[in-house]
Parts: sequence; C-alpha cells; structure tokens
Amino acid sequence: MTTFIESLQAAWQRNRSLVCVGLDPEPARLPTRFAGDDDAVFAFCRDIVDATADLVCCFKPQIAHFAALGAEGALQRLIAHIHARQPGVPVILDAKRGDIGSTAEHYAREAFERYGADAVTLNPYLGRDSLQPFLDRADKGAVILCRTSNPGAGDLQDLDVGGMPLYQRVAERVAHEWNGNGNCLLVTGATYPSQLAEVRRIVGDMPLLVPGIGAQGGDVEAVLGHGQASDGAGLLISSSRAILYASAADDFAAAARQATLALRDEINRHRRMPTD
Amino acid sequence: MTTFIESLQAAWQRNRSLVCVGLDPEPARLPTRFAGDDDAVFAFCRDIVDATADLVCCFKPQIAHFAALGAEGALQRLIAHIHARQPGVPVILDAKRGDIGSTAEHYAREAFERYGADAVTLNPYLGRDSLQPFLDRADKGAVILCRTSNPGAGDLQDLDVGGMPLYQRVAERVAHEWNGNGNCLLVTGATYPSQLAEVRRIVGDMPLLVPGIGAQGGDVEAVLGHGQASDGAGLLISSSRAILYASAADDFAAAARQATLALRDEINRHRRMPTD
Repeated sequence: MTTFIESLQAAWQRNRSLVCVGLDPEPARLPTRFAGDDDAVFAFCRDIVDATADLVCCFKPQIAHFAALGAEGALQRLIAHIHARQPGVPVILDAKRGDIGSTAEHYAREAFERYGADAVTLNPYLGRDSLQPFLDRADKGAVILCRTSNPGAGDLQDLDVGGMPLYQRVAERVAHEWNGNGNCLLVTGATYPSQLAEVRRIVGDMPLLVPGIGAQGGDVEAVLGHGQASDGAGLLISSSRAILYASAADDFAAAARQATLALRDEINRHRRMPTD
Repeated sequence: MTTFIESLQAAWQRNRSLVCVGLDPEPARLPTRFAGDDDAVFAFCRDIVDATADLVCCFKPQIAHFAALGAEGALQRLIAHIHARQPGVPVILDAKRGDIGSTAEHYAREAFERYGADAVTLNPYLGRDSLQPFLDRADKGAVILCRTSNPGAGDLQDLDVGGMPLYQRVAERVAHEWNGNGNCLLVTGATYPSQLAEVRRIVGDMPLLVPGIGAQGGDVEAVLGHGQASDGAGLLISSSRAILYASAADDFAAAARQATLALRDEINRHRRMPTD
C-alpha cells in the first residue's frame, strides 16, 4: 500500500512541482458557462483538476465551500474523480478538524472512509488525544495547524510560552512526540517567512503546507529561501483563487493551467533542485 | 427577534434546567427497535428530543456523528423538528469550526443558514478573524473552546503564557475583546472544577458550556460550586451518552427522560436558585 507521504514524494518528483491547488469553489465566481448548471461546483472543480494534475503535487478541496451549499455529494464525486482519473496525485481534505474521544474517530471516518481523502488538516488546540485517530492512520497524512497566514493568527499562536511562541511549541510537540508514524505535516503560512524558517529548523525535513502565496501576499522566493527541506522539496505551496479564477471566460481551465505552470516554474527557479 | 442568549435565558427559567442534551447518535448503540430503519438516526434523536424538551435548556447535536454517516439530511431535519415542535429550546451545533477569511464565512453559512442552528461551537487557535463571521451574528451564539475535558486538553491549553495558562488567556480575550455583541459563551470542562472557577472569575456571568459530567467523571456538586453565575444559572451542563443510551430497549425515550430529570434535579439541588 502506498502511503500519503510516499504518494506526495512521488508526485513532487514526477511533476517536478511543489504546487498544491486548493479547490475552494465560490458559486458567485464560477465561469459564466456554468450558469444554471445544477452540478456546477463538481464540473468546475473537475475541469480544474484535469487541466492541472500533471503540474501539481496534490489537490486540497476545502470542505466548508461544499458544506455551505449542501454539496457533500459533489465533494465525494470530486475526490473519487481525482483518484480514478489522476491516480498518484494525493488529496488533502482541508477541514481543520479536532474533537475529543469518539467524536475524533467519527471525523476520521468522515475524512478517510466517506470522502476517501489521503490526508486531512487538523487543529491542535484540544491536544494529542483529539488527533490520535488521525495519527494512528500511518497510511494517511495528518496536516496540523502550526502558524497560519491570517491577520489574527498571532492572537494565540504567537503568545510566548517559556521563551518561544506557541506555534513553535506546537511544531516541537508534533515533530518529537506526535509523529511516531512519520505521517505528520504542519501548516505554516507564507506571510512571515522568518516563521517558516523557525519551523523548518525545529522539524527537520517534515513536509510543510504553505498557504498565503499570492492573494495573501506571501513571496515565493522568501518561502523557498526559508522553507525548503534539505532535498529541495518538503513544501506544498497552496494556491486557490489565483488559479481557480484566472479567467471567468470559457478558457478558465486553460488559464488555470497557465497560472499553475507559472507558479510551478517560479517556485522551481528558487529551489535547490536535485540533480537528475 | 429573539437572540440565542435570550432563548437560552428563557429556557433556563421556563424549564428550571441547566441541562444540555448532546445528540451524538452512534448507530451501533441505537435501541434494537431501529434495526433496519433507514432513517434510524433521525428517528432516534427525534424521540429523545420530544421526550426531554421540557427538561432542558438546549440541545446540542454533534455534527461529526452525522457527517461520518453522510446523514447531513437527518441533521437538517432534526434541527427543523426541534424548532417546529419544541420552539424556544435553542440548538447549539457542536462543530468546533474555525478557519480563515472567506472560509469562516462559509462555515457560518453552513451552521446558521443551512442547518438553522442558533449557536455553534468554535475553536480559537486561528485567532479572532477566524471567528469574526460568527461574532458578527449578534442573534446567534459563539461557543468558543476554552478548557476542554479530554485527557490531552492540557497539551496546549495549560501552557503558561505570561503567568497564566493559555485557556485563561483565551477567556480574557473572549470576555474583554471578542464579546462586543454579548453573544459569546465558553466551553469549560467539568473534569477540573478549579479551572471552571478560574474561568468564571475572568468572564463574570458569561454562560459556560460544561461537558464532562458523568461518563467523563465530572462531579455535579463541584461544577455548581465553582461554575454558576451570580443568578444561579450561567451554565449549560452537557450530557450525551448517559441520557441517549439510558436504555437499549423499547423504553429508551422514557429512560432518557428519567435520566434527564434526575440530572436536572441533582443540578438544581446544588444551585443558588432564584426566588420565584
């Protein structure tokens, strides 16, 4: 059985790409050709996936964008489509789950059994046991929030705990205590590259999911300079809106491909690429 | 328009109850009469609701228990049933949401528009802006995790930040900065009553949702002694399994009612009851 981490590493290599395309469909922003289409959210995301799959290391559907519409069925079909038509490209369900006891097990079942995701984003505030059903799945990825890219991220994450900010303590806990199965990743935003460097120093070559490029102002060169692992990979650099809505016309899929290609190549220019 | 807080206060008074019944359906534990019933999860929860509604201050369905089964429709119908048949008993959607920017808005739409919940549980790790779409809804309740009742709760929540544990800092932030609309509540577990006392000291009469009674070992007398507000209320004491699974036979609804009544009365014995 191929694990999430193995799939990710293979996709990094095969597609020479650290790009993670975020699938965050906004009905009001879909291309006009989908007007009146009852299955627009699925069809739009499917077309984006098929136009970009050879240029990415993973896809990351955001569950709230489906749940707000009651479109869980579309999300299930979308992930099934990726597995069937783009095999080898892993899927991270962006759900930021975290709950206690048996409820955490239900969330794990939701992500892995119901949706067939390969990894899921998780919130660490409730502590290790709230993530245990995810940590126990050695074949799946546990992508744990560390330092996020939003304006209020520092409200809790930057509080000083014994000489270091809370987010670094989270990084330590995950790297040294919670990663027994080698299936953990951390979310570390692009907006403050020095924080990315601190997290990289703590976690070694653990893969980092990096939102905040583009729309949120993160700088690709700085992210690569501070965040890449010793092999020139170790990053999943997430972009959503700049790719999904690169064009609102009938060429939206081609425009999404161009935007993905441009981001992939810009990233690769700043990588210490492995010799091959 | 009646706000969540007003509904809660009215239910506290009308039903003389601080009991919150958690609706966490486990298919394997449903009474045998539901075997083979395609709509068992809805029917079971509906019967529990109708048997206990005059003895509680709110209901709290746990979304993961529905989502793992693909039973979002049952959850929608359940909340609609409560509003239609048990008007005046507010519904807290236990979802522990929290995400950035537009995604937070999608989660708010999920909870309030799609499901029609009156309040939702939220995770503060991502900071104020991740909760803003919920804080902005003055008519709805924002029930923010503070100190939870699970074994690993202290991993982050008890870390010392400037002379106080993180959970107390969260309580301060919520009470003094995030509660401009007066619609915030905190989740504070029953397992360590002294922590409940600390939170009560910080937040004044803000309502506290208290899980961890019964199955998790919390003690009713200690919870009341340390947690009640100045008017003898201010608490939503949550119980799920001890009520839902009080009997696995055909008398499950009557048994649930008895268990709710016993908990309500035990709580009331330890309250400073308002004169009436």
